[in-house]
Amino acid sequence: MMDDRSQLSAMNFLNEVSGVFPSAISLASGRPNDRFFDKLDPEVLVNALRVYERHSTGCHRSGQGWSDLLQYGRTAGIISEFVAQQVRSDEGVPAKADRILITSGCQEALAICLPALCPEPADVLLVCNPTYVGVTGAAKAAKVAIAALSNSGPSVADAIEAAVQDLRRNGRRARAIYLIPDFDNPTGRVLGAVARRDILQVCARHRLVVLEDNPYGLFRYEGDAVPPMAALDQVGSVIYLSTFSKTLSPALRVGAAILPDTIFGDAGVCQALWDDLVQRKSFVTINTSQITQAIVAGLLIEQRASLRGWIRPALDWYRANRDVMLRQLDSVFSPLSDPIRWNRPSGGFFLALDLPFRFGADDVDECARRDNVIVMPMSFFALDDSQDCRVRLAFSAVTPEQIRTSVTGLGRYIERRLGGKLPGLTGGLARG
Amino acid sequence: MMDDRSQLSAMNFLNEVSGVFPSAISLASGRPNDRFFDKLDPEVLVNALRVYERHSTGCHRSGQGWSDLLQYGRTAGIISEFVAQQVRSDEGVPAKADRILITSGCQEALAICLPALCPEPADVLLVCNPTYVGVTGAAKAAKVAIAALSNSGPSVADAIEAAVQDLRRNGRRARAIYLIPDFDNPTGRVLGAVARRDILQVCARHRLVVLEDNPYGLFRYEGDAVPPMAALDQVGSVIYLSTFSKTLSPALRVGAAILPDTIFGDAGVCQALWDDLVQRKSFVTINTSQITQAIVAGLLIEQRASLRGWIRPALDWYRANRDVMLRQLDSVFSPLSDPIRWNRPSGGFFLALDLPFRFGADDVDECARRDNVIVMPMSFFALDDSQDCRVRLAFSAVTPEQIRTSVTGLGRYIERRLGGKLPGLTGGLARG
Repeated sequence: MMDDRSQLSAMNFLNEVSGVFPSAISLASGRPNDRFFDKLDPEVLVNALRVYERHSTGCHRSGQGWSDLLQYGRTAGIISEFVAQQVRSDEGVPAKADRILITSGCQEALAICLPALCPEPADVLLVCNPTYVGVTGAAKAAKVAIAALSNSGPSVADAIEAAVQDLRRNGRRARAIYLIPDFDNPTGRVLGAVARRDILQVCARHRLVVLEDNPYGLFRYEGDAVPPMAALDQVGSVIYLSTFSKTLSPALRVGAAILPDTIFGDAGVCQALWDDLVQRKSFVTINTSQITQAIVAGLLIEQRASLRGWIRPALDWYRANRDVMLRQLDSVFSPLSDPIRWNRPSGGFFLALDLPFRFGADDVDECARRDNVIVMPMSFFALDDSQDCRVRLAFSAVTPEQIRTSVTGLGRYIERRLGGKLPGLTGGLARG
Repeated sequence: MMDDRSQLSAMNFLNEVSGVFPSAISLASGRPNDRFFDKLDPEVLVNALRVYERHSTGCHRSGQGWSDLLQYGRTAGIISEFVAQQVRSDEGVPAKADRILITSGCQEALAICLPALCPEPADVLLVCNPTYVGVTGAAKAAKVAIAALSNSGPSVADAIEAAVQDLRRNGRRARAIYLIPDFDNPTGRVLGAVARRDILQVCARHRLVVLEDNPYGLFRYEGDAVPPMAALDQVGSVIYLSTFSKTLSPALRVGAAILPDTIFGDAGVCQALWDDLVQRKSFVTINTSQITQAIVAGLLIEQRASLRGWIRPALDWYRANRDVMLRQLDSVFSPLSDPIRWNRPSGGFFLALDLPFRFGADDVDECARRDNVIVMPMSFFALDDSQDCRVRLAFSAVTPEQIRTSVTGLGRYIERRLGGKLPGLTGGLARG
């Protein structure tokens, strides 16, 4: 389990690093790129509000409709039907509006779901290692125990089976697992269809609920999409977490938890879980801002329930950034490709770089100060020391120019650490 | 401790009752009145966004400023300086911007503060009985134990002293107390300056943090304001909770937790508490919507940091409603003023009505169905059976006409329950 300090500093890196080293280029932030927010100027926001208002109330009593919008409202939210349509058409998830809980960003969905799924002291949430700091942080804040899946086993399904058995021997019970199957944060990994079906099978056998978080699924750069686990789920084991932070804007703070029809075939258990989640939501934020909900709904109405057209410019930009980063990594590091390895993600915002030495918080400082590049130690996302020699590189929030310059700077840093020259650096510098 | 059912049904009453008995008049909802939301039409909202944008970035680089606004942002929020000015000028609270945590409504401040103030299993939060369901619900969700102050003692301070001693004898430790000193929800009670100083003294003696929730303080209808406990606090014992839900709109979901300079003289303890609250905030909602934060800041800039002018029409309306309700209660019930009593709140949205019989959920149904009035059983806010013969009457969300009609309807219901005539009812009907 990470201690407070590393979690806090990780969140600082994620949210506030840009201010710490103003002159350095940050490959640490997995934020969506600012440049695509200009589409959401004030006029677009107010127009979206009007579109939603017209659609929901009809002009003849829009005044009343507007007053309703600015009032306290339904705890589970008021735009479930629009979110259901978008998730069905864009992600192929069989979402039903009456099972969609609108949350103040996807983080609130985690803060609500974790204690609801793991109410007893013996209950445990399974997570990958490394994993998103927001889920380990939410678990810690809710006093929910977590256990890391081993990376040594042949498959995630086998790791789940082993973790369930191991916990059982110690009197604990695995109740749920958190996964980002598409373009994982922090690793960029994609789980294949076979792996997803195997995971669903082992989870059904042990009645583990899958929390499928899918913030990056629409950002696939090549190849065919793998169906979300919520689309492959046949028994009622997947709660699908959706967000508009990467597609529209993080400032909306609108996300959703989408429940199946039943939990492992039991509609009553699902209804009880729904009631518990709605009650918990009411005690965390009462209801999600109806102003930002209405903006999301208005935009979804205008986009005819699909955001694929809206995000296309961002998608092309992120794909080009990924290609630039991979090319630059090749040109700078290929001579050392044995000690230094990285994956080639088919989507998302991140890749993982393996180093032949440990890289921690102090190294971040030196790398930022001397080589003007900020990278995220993978240890910030880890539950043990197995990730100490890896870093996460994010290519979403930077320009191609910044990627070339910063990867070259990272090369210089690594060169110093290795005490040897990187022949590729010259070429890298030329490109940089 | 209330069970899930009563809490859930209470929240349903508060948020969704209007749909249950469409023809009945609701005196159950303590919502702000819709009619004053028309001031916040879409143009006003977008103008507020522009005012904030201009103020925060200057026109020459407003594009970048706008992009920053739509991005993830500072965990503690971006409008603390504006909130500090408003709280200082309107409420006399010596708020410092660097100690203001902006939250997704005041409810999130409770969800974050309670587990931070009561981290150990032996820690207990003290609450009045009855009290706001949102605090007992947040405590339950965060697995924070609560203890009710006795109403039998001579003063709140004495009740706190007794509760602290009683808990200590049982190996528990009171760590904080939740209070609504101005126009309490659900009772309408105001704590006088002497009572507030006595409470601060006993809390300082036992190092109890006071969570002062003040959603109704600006809605005083007569008499001089009593200084907030955060203004009277000299040792660093009060966390002041502020919200814009009653003054501007609940749909903004913007509130704040305002910390003192020190906790009982210790600046380090206060800094550690601040860091803990910010971290917890990041794991609940990451940050509060910067769109709704900017709307609030833009409106505060336009109102020159005071909302007193903005709320004056609502203040006058609520005062008139309170007067109508008190007159109608007099005319309907005065003949029975011995068995039926009520308080005369000098502000806020509520009063408490004492009945000579129990009034619970089933009675709400009958009263709504047969007499077309919905009232809130005080037992929904209670931690024991001491409130079973009381109801909360809210006069904020209804019209004077509806108040006359519904209080008369309540008279008919009570008449039936008492099996006797209320002479005042005729007059009440005439007025109704």
